[in-house]
Amino acid sequence: MKVEIIAIGDELLIGQTVNTNASWLGQEFSLRGYQITRALSIADDPQQIIAALDNLLPDTNCVIITGGLGPTKDDLTKHTLAAYFNSELAIDEPTLAQIVAFFEGRNKPMLEVNVQQAALPVKAKILKNRRGTAAGMWFEKKDVIFISLPGVPYEMKTIMTEEAFPILEERFGKSNLYHRTILTQGIGESFLAEQISDWEDRVRQAGLGLAYLPAPGLVKLRLTSYKGIAEAQFIDELFTELKNRFPEAVFGEGDQTLEGILGTLLLEKKLRIGTVESCTAGKLAQTIASVPGASAYYQGALLTYSNELKNRIAEVSNEALLNFGAVSEQVAIEMAANGKRILDVDYCISTTGVAGPTGGTPEKPVGLVWIGLSGPNGTFARSFRFGDNRQRNLEMTVLSAMNWLRYHLQTH
Amino acid sequence: MKVEIIAIGDELLIGQTVNTNASWLGQEFSLRGYQITRALSIADDPQQIIAALDNLLPDTNCVIITGGLGPTKDDLTKHTLAAYFNSELAIDEPTLAQIVAFFEGRNKPMLEVNVQQAALPVKAKILKNRRGTAAGMWFEKKDVIFISLPGVPYEMKTIMTEEAFPILEERFGKSNLYHRTILTQGIGESFLAEQISDWEDRVRQAGLGLAYLPAPGLVKLRLTSYKGIAEAQFIDELFTELKNRFPEAVFGEGDQTLEGILGTLLLEKKLRIGTVESCTAGKLAQTIASVPGASAYYQGALLTYSNELKNRIAEVSNEALLNFGAVSEQVAIEMAANGKRILDVDYCISTTGVAGPTGGTPEKPVGLVWIGLSGPNGTFARSFRFGDNRQRNLEMTVLSAMNWLRYHLQTH
Repeated sequence: MKVEIIAIGDELLIGQTVNTNASWLGQEFSLRGYQITRALSIADDPQQIIAALDNLLPDTNCVIITGGLGPTKDDLTKHTLAAYFNSELAIDEPTLAQIVAFFEGRNKPMLEVNVQQAALPVKAKILKNRRGTAAGMWFEKKDVIFISLPGVPYEMKTIMTEEAFPILEERFGKSNLYHRTILTQGIGESFLAEQISDWEDRVRQAGLGLAYLPAPGLVKLRLTSYKGIAEAQFIDELFTELKNRFPEAVFGEGDQTLEGILGTLLLEKKLRIGTVESCTAGKLAQTIASVPGASAYYQGALLTYSNELKNRIAEVSNEALLNFGAVSEQVAIEMAANGKRILDVDYCISTTGVAGPTGGTPEKPVGLVWIGLSGPNGTFARSFRFGDNRQRNLEMTVLSAMNWLRYHLQTH
Repeated sequence: MKVEIIAIGDELLIGQTVNTNASWLGQEFSLRGYQITRALSIADDPQQIIAALDNLLPDTNCVIITGGLGPTKDDLTKHTLAAYFNSELAIDEPTLAQIVAFFEGRNKPMLEVNVQQAALPVKAKILKNRRGTAAGMWFEKKDVIFISLPGVPYEMKTIMTEEAFPILEERFGKSNLYHRTILTQGIGESFLAEQISDWEDRVRQAGLGLAYLPAPGLVKLRLTSYKGIAEAQFIDELFTELKNRFPEAVFGEGDQTLEGILGTLLLEKKLRIGTVESCTAGKLAQTIASVPGASAYYQGALLTYSNELKNRIAEVSNEALLNFGAVSEQVAIEMAANGKRILDVDYCISTTGVAGPTGGTPEKPVGLVWIGLSGPNGTFARSFRFGDNRQRNLEMTVLSAMNWLRYHLQTH
């Protein structure tokens, strides 16, 4: 099936809004084995909308139209589509009931413009929007399906997922594609590709698809079976092999996150954790604390940006600071070990590094980071050499620290 | 001038990359008074590229083509454009010199594919890319300008800014548009609009454009003069009036940030700052520390997520915690006042709140946040009621805290 996207909205053309709907639709259709052939953004203008509908690619089977369904007068999509498909508007009672319930649930007054949102083209199949007041509409003309959806991303996604994709899959057959993604941290993409070239050969010989998906600080490998879930066990075996070869780098699958996996481990083992941070300035704490329920294991942190505070509140010795400098194995070790005691936690992670863009020296260049880890088995420190991008260095530090502790907890 | 965008790249259609180039171009062209009429994304496919070039809107003056200029074999834009404009390719010596210098500067080996990037259509005007190896190309055909640029955002932006916009402005006249943006925090958009309706009337009567620009947690108002910089003083007066009416809410102009303004004030006044954070879990610290040179004033923080740590390391009294609860004026005050002493800083900000999504009670609902501020003039606390979105509550807390201190420093 070949799909085109038409996004309607002046805000897209003046750059006030980034068209993330198009990329989400691209991902979701691709995962189902459908192909997006073109994505167009146009103004809230009936002539442009009609011109776009009249000029589809010849082999297009389905058109997704996003935007222009709000209650305000700028939003012209519904009337334009009704005219284009020669359809009267009439109040759709289920939609009206849904809009009434929507306003009642929020204790907000319902206006006449909102009632009018239930006036829908009688020729359209209505796609229920349970998260907003603009229903989706499904038209057909000369074997082409036209699906009109609101531009608000979570409304659009909900209607596609709950209403439109099930009908498309019933009509065109459910795709046999079966995807699984394995997540790694700490190995560069090129190096990993070199190391697993034999594994990749076997993957491809077996007829599976392989994609390296970009993700900041991680490498994600997606395997695709064209035979469906029947190959799940084979993919399991391939993933297990990767885990055995790179036990520290491979940390999870699919939508998992390092902070989520770490949280589950800490909960299971009933352990408490804290951090003592210099270069990351709270980014590690915040990432660990972002998991719902993190308060069960995350206690808190000392952010010792200045040397004075490293000494005073993290009790790092002036000897270590003077003899080795703030970015050093010794200081990382003292930060972690003292933090464990001061915060009264089972595990404490410390970070100290030259995040950049300035502050590097020949001995301690930008990108050098020491991470300390103190726990029941002792205190350790490891150095990392990241690049010259400050933001990326901080992200890599946070991911490396969490992955180190994740691996430590799984192996101790 | 009417402009279309054609973005080339399979990664856009499968949703692996979000087309932020289109929104940046939309903003930049709009600011200059040019209109983007359409933005199209298509595959790395010569037929599709040619079809797109053949089907421009009738009144298009300029086409921006992004992507497909890399050295790999997937990137077909250059050859397709050369054929489309009937142009031979030949090595462009300045481009080759630039590519050689690019690799020398990075100590990386230059490959034959990179040399071939200097083979450019002889009919094109070459737009220098000082940040990469893919030059921009400028073609003209039947009064339409075609500008082809690499898809890497910072390369595309650099070429547009340094090479293409100056030529366009010379050709079509520099726009007379003059934009100024004023930044506010702490007043909702609807409420602000209501409060300044008289001011808005005067703005519109004077023939100025007014736009409310979306920004998380802020309200930005952009005034546009169609008569150019001649109206700068008038806009100054309008802005001064807003500042005088809302001295706490109006914090800056243009590209300024709260953390940047706060940093400048702290530097000027030679003050040191720290934070004691509960609900924000380091987000405030990290935002303050994100300004280059922040180590001159930012000392560090205590992140006291658990009550135990509020008591032990921030020395919050058990009385306050038991009698009033962690989210209370008393605890916010003790966190800030004790933090000022423990961190040995001039100003200390504290945060404690119910960020959500769970944990609310009738007395302390999700969205209730107390912020404390301790400084040479004493210790104060203020409560805020944000909404039910955790991420947004944390962002609002950080912005509100910084804006409070900003205003305090400017008025004390």
